[in-house]
Amino acid sequence: MGSIERIRNVARRVAKWHAAGHQVVVVPSAMSGETNRLLGLAREIAADPDGRELDMLAATGEQASSALLAMALQAEGVKARSYTGWQVPVRTDSSYTKARISSIDDARIRGDLDAGRVVVVTGFQGIDEEGHITTLGRGGSDTSAVAVAAALKADECLIYTDVDGVYTTDPRVVPEARRLSVISFEEMLEMASLGSKVLQIRSVEFAGKYRVPVRVLSSLTDPLMSLDEEMRSGTLITFEEDEKMEAAVVSGIAFSRDEAKITLLGVPDKPGIAFSILGPIAERNIDVDMIVQNQSVAGTTDFSFTVNRNEFSRAVDVLQNVVAPAVGAGEIAKDDKVAKVSIVGIGMRSHVGVASLMFRTLSEEGINIRMISTSEIKTSVLIDDKYMELAVRALHKAFGLDQAPGAAA
Amino acid sequence: MGSIERIRNVARRVAKWHAAGHQVVVVPSAMSGETNRLLGLAREIAADPDGRELDMLAATGEQASSALLAMALQAEGVKARSYTGWQVPVRTDSSYTKARISSIDDARIRGDLDAGRVVVVTGFQGIDEEGHITTLGRGGSDTSAVAVAAALKADECLIYTDVDGVYTTDPRVVPEARRLSVISFEEMLEMASLGSKVLQIRSVEFAGKYRVPVRVLSSLTDPLMSLDEEMRSGTLITFEEDEKMEAAVVSGIAFSRDEAKITLLGVPDKPGIAFSILGPIAERNIDVDMIVQNQSVAGTTDFSFTVNRNEFSRAVDVLQNVVAPAVGAGEIAKDDKVAKVSIVGIGMRSHVGVASLMFRTLSEEGINIRMISTSEIKTSVLIDDKYMELAVRALHKAFGLDQAPGAAA
Repeated sequence: MGSIERIRNVARRVAKWHAAGHQVVVVPSAMSGETNRLLGLAREIAADPDGRELDMLAATGEQASSALLAMALQAEGVKARSYTGWQVPVRTDSSYTKARISSIDDARIRGDLDAGRVVVVTGFQGIDEEGHITTLGRGGSDTSAVAVAAALKADECLIYTDVDGVYTTDPRVVPEARRLSVISFEEMLEMASLGSKVLQIRSVEFAGKYRVPVRVLSSLTDPLMSLDEEMRSGTLITFEEDEKMEAAVVSGIAFSRDEAKITLLGVPDKPGIAFSILGPIAERNIDVDMIVQNQSVAGTTDFSFTVNRNEFSRAVDVLQNVVAPAVGAGEIAKDDKVAKVSIVGIGMRSHVGVASLMFRTLSEEGINIRMISTSEIKTSVLIDDKYMELAVRALHKAFGLDQAPGAAA
Repeated sequence: MGSIERIRNVARRVAKWHAAGHQVVVVPSAMSGETNRLLGLAREIAADPDGRELDMLAATGEQASSALLAMALQAEGVKARSYTGWQVPVRTDSSYTKARISSIDDARIRGDLDAGRVVVVTGFQGIDEEGHITTLGRGGSDTSAVAVAAALKADECLIYTDVDGVYTTDPRVVPEARRLSVISFEEMLEMASLGSKVLQIRSVEFAGKYRVPVRVLSSLTDPLMSLDEEMRSGTLITFEEDEKMEAAVVSGIAFSRDEAKITLLGVPDKPGIAFSILGPIAERNIDVDMIVQNQSVAGTTDFSFTVNRNEFSRAVDVLQNVVAPAVGAGEIAKDDKVAKVSIVGIGMRSHVGVASLMFRTLSEEGINIRMISTSEIKTSVLIDDKYMELAVRALHKAFGLDQAPGAAA
């Protein structure tokens, strides 16, 4: 019933935009809990169900919610029609459970829009070249929405979620965290890849590839609030680094506890050693994040990298059984009690001393840095996970993120 | 959980047939209660939801159960693949919520069968010419199964249901009712249209049109029983009236309480009067069942017919507001406390006196007959519904249906 009420609220909100003269395409996710329910059934039947059949199963969640939303729109007096991924069609590759969108045919959607209809497109799914149903992986509805917006060259893609925008950091860790009214695409990409759960990273990548302006908004606000008010809420992810951008050097602090560090000690230091170690890891589809190779001492080196904590034991197995014998390494040091904390901001490009303020702040809190990784607009450190919250709070304060933009910097 | 166990049992049963060298296509229905759950959600959103969106919603139930069954087959070590209606494709007309199958492409299914796979095809659904999802109406999975069997020219279509075959009458009314091991297609068609709920009537019609032998079996038996034993259970619906057919004159007694009788009194008796009365009823998609026009008396006649009890008030409205003023009829007599009892048997073709045994039996029980309708292989009577069970029991005994075929007739 809570979910039905949510569908009604979405319909009211969409009807409002439609009444204001906008052509609207809606990409709903499944009803709350439905995807978990379906995957739970699959796991009751098989420990490791076939990907093709899993997608066939999971795709029903969005199909059902899309049909229900179309009915709710009709009940609001709005002409509406829902389409599954294959009806559009949304074409993807054949990587079941984590397919990538290759193209979207906009003809059918555009025909309905021009006929005055609101079009509801099932998120999360598509079809591959042979006509099998595929899904895009968790959070895939965001990616679908951005991809549909790109295909239709929409003015903006509004993503309604259970938070009301992108924050300087997670408000559950730092109560002073502020909502950003604008964030650059590049910053958002770093935030998403560094552990901010607001948007699926692939949806941000898609937005970047096709330059789709995305606005993150709360689905929990009054659906009948004025359009002006609605557009002032949330966070706009923009490609224009103009006056709208906040003047802060650092825009946000991201963090992730899903980290584990592995070090191979006493590796013979010779050309190609990094590939010898990481090649077998990559072959097994294990993502490596931070990588550090220490200065060579007496012909050997220590080689460290981090993986997702879920893949820790698989990665250690590969190192022990495949890599270590092959490269003649010594001991393997393991640590899955680590966390990654990152500062992100396009201002870092033009401001010096940003990283050093980060390191000083952590040092003043007595937090030891285990690894460092940098890019043009972010600096990440790996620390003991028990210090994670402390580090985030200290950095949030040190970079003035708890003050409104006008007041800071 | 009960439903997951049922899916596992279906998989075990199918694996058994597959292991014996049969090419098998399975057409599952939705998991128990799922279709009602989905339609309940729709009704929460809209009093009279759009048919197209209802079908989009309802079709998800069979898609989910088909994917789960394919997983369960794979868990049994059987290569399997599931297809939705549109993937086959199963083409239908555009009558949402009660579409009719127009064609089934067997290429994809046959390719998988030849590759050694069991093919799971979602029942109950198809696509229309414009690629919209359609459903076939309640019990449509039976129709899908027969249609797929016809398209593939299958040896036999086994329909597993919650009863173990076709009975001489409903065992809940007559404990002595016997399971028929064979029934002719025409008898089954009459039984289905007369209220026996074992098979959806359209599935029987389809079986007749394409001469698909259908066997009704229980889904509750041990899935690992021997194939021989399984083929001796259930009821075969056959097109061959050969030695396998039982020698009984009457094969079964069907009954239905979903009846209502309407009589238009004092209708001017002139040509075209039946059409003047029933035309407006048919225009409103109300099915008329039995029709009786009494002998004309003094230039007027009484015209009676029955409709489904659900459509009683709509039919009465049409008569009062449209028909009666137009034809200049007098009073309308209404009775929704009636039931229809029918005897069915291909033996009636060649045996005289069958109907009169029926009338005598009812008379001996003091049951008044309100209307009579006959066809080549059935005789139906309309009676007060309070006498329905008594009539069924008396007729079952009078026609010797409670005795094994060898003993009777």
